[in-house]
Amino acid sequence: MRFQAPESLSEQIAQHLGQRIITRDLQPGERIQELKVSGELNVSRGSVREALLILERRHLVDIFPRRGAVVSSLTPDSVNSLYDIYIDLLCMLGRKVLERWSGTQLGGVMGQVRELQAVIGALNSDAPDAAEQVIDAGFGVMQYAYRLVENPFLEETLENFRPAISRTYFVALEHFRGEIGETGRFFRQLAEAAGSGDADRLQAVIRAFGEHQRQRVLSILTDEEHA
Amino acid sequence: MRFQAPESLSEQIAQHLGQRIITRDLQPGERIQELKVSGELNVSRGSVREALLILERRHLVDIFPRRGAVVSSLTPDSVNSLYDIYIDLLCMLGRKVLERWSGTQLGGVMGQVRELQAVIGALNSDAPDAAEQVIDAGFGVMQYAYRLVENPFLEETLENFRPAISRTYFVALEHFRGEIGETGRFFRQLAEAAGSGDADRLQAVIRAFGEHQRQRVLSILTDEEHA
Repeated sequence: MRFQAPESLSEQIAQHLGQRIITRDLQPGERIQELKVSGELNVSRGSVREALLILERRHLVDIFPRRGAVVSSLTPDSVNSLYDIYIDLLCMLGRKVLERWSGTQLGGVMGQVRELQAVIGALNSDAPDAAEQVIDAGFGVMQYAYRLVENPFLEETLENFRPAISRTYFVALEHFRGEIGETGRFFRQLAEAAGSGDADRLQAVIRAFGEHQRQRVLSILTDEEHA
Repeated sequence: MRFQAPESLSEQIAQHLGQRIITRDLQPGERIQELKVSGELNVSRGSVREALLILERRHLVDIFPRRGAVVSSLTPDSVNSLYDIYIDLLCMLGRKVLERWSGTQLGGVMGQVRELQAVIGALNSDAPDAAEQVIDAGFGVMQYAYRLVENPFLEETLENFRPAISRTYFVALEHFRGEIGETGRFFRQLAEAAGSGDADRLQAVIRAFGEHQRQRVLSILTDEEHA
């Protein structure tokens, strides 16, 4: 058994508020008032301020002098900017995995990715937490890649984008149950491309899935705007 | 005249401590004690905690549960990880400039880069702030590119790496006065490559200069270790 230090109070507050932002319980553009949050959660105002700095780092909140903290926007423009950098960072991660490891060495890892694909295939797409399970599976594969690449800066940068990306996945998966099957297919292609040791092929697979996700999110946001 | 909101107190503290870390007045691995800093600067402990979170985001400090804040390491491994992601992000920035703007449209911008090159060429390399002037000129070009690309996430991610990169430049420029001429040549090549509209050529120029800087920093750190 491994004992872990409990998360700091500000980290706990950040995760609580972050979850509300990801599920859009707190809406893009909504103000987050320090005083109100500190009263609701019965914590100090200082801890809330620290939590807001953590959420700003994770791209879920913008902090303005005087105006305070506001939930970051979720518009076609912001989604495009986010996916532009995120897809490129994922390609970088994939490239660096193959720079360090041959396709053969990746056999074991990729077996796990295929298992994941089977789990996703067996998921009941109507289960209330199906979307979250698929999202977690995807991030699980990235954790694996981090260990192979050993670049703490790349890991941190990608992890800081994770909540904002989760918010967009949440939009997409809530609307398109078919996305779950699509994600399963992506994992299979990812495993095959990594096993082939071909960096261009791996990047093409990552890019195609990223672009697919981007288009899904953009089309839903456009529909919502016109609803 | 434009009036600007003053930096928040925590931002001011972050910049003060950040400058001391960049110049290695605060050494890699050194503990930063909240209580001591709050006493020295006559500010609240809460403001220092916020400043440390800002510095963690900027990769200058690591915060550990219980142990507190420690100046981030500056070793061959950490420099390699840092340059790996930073060079890729710069290439991304260059690529995105050329996706949006033709070589002809970039003529004006590149005139400015050439002016910068002239300024650097005329610099007295023995002036005490020569290193800082060269570093600032380089980041000035990036500011320009940000405006052309309009991706706030890419800008923020690159800007968050700026202090850690500055710390390594500081190492390199203090030791190699010849670096100033090298940087001038880089600006000229950058302007020519951007004007040609050839993304591969632009990336090759960025990568070559990045790799050159990386090797300089690595060789100095290795020398220091053995000194």
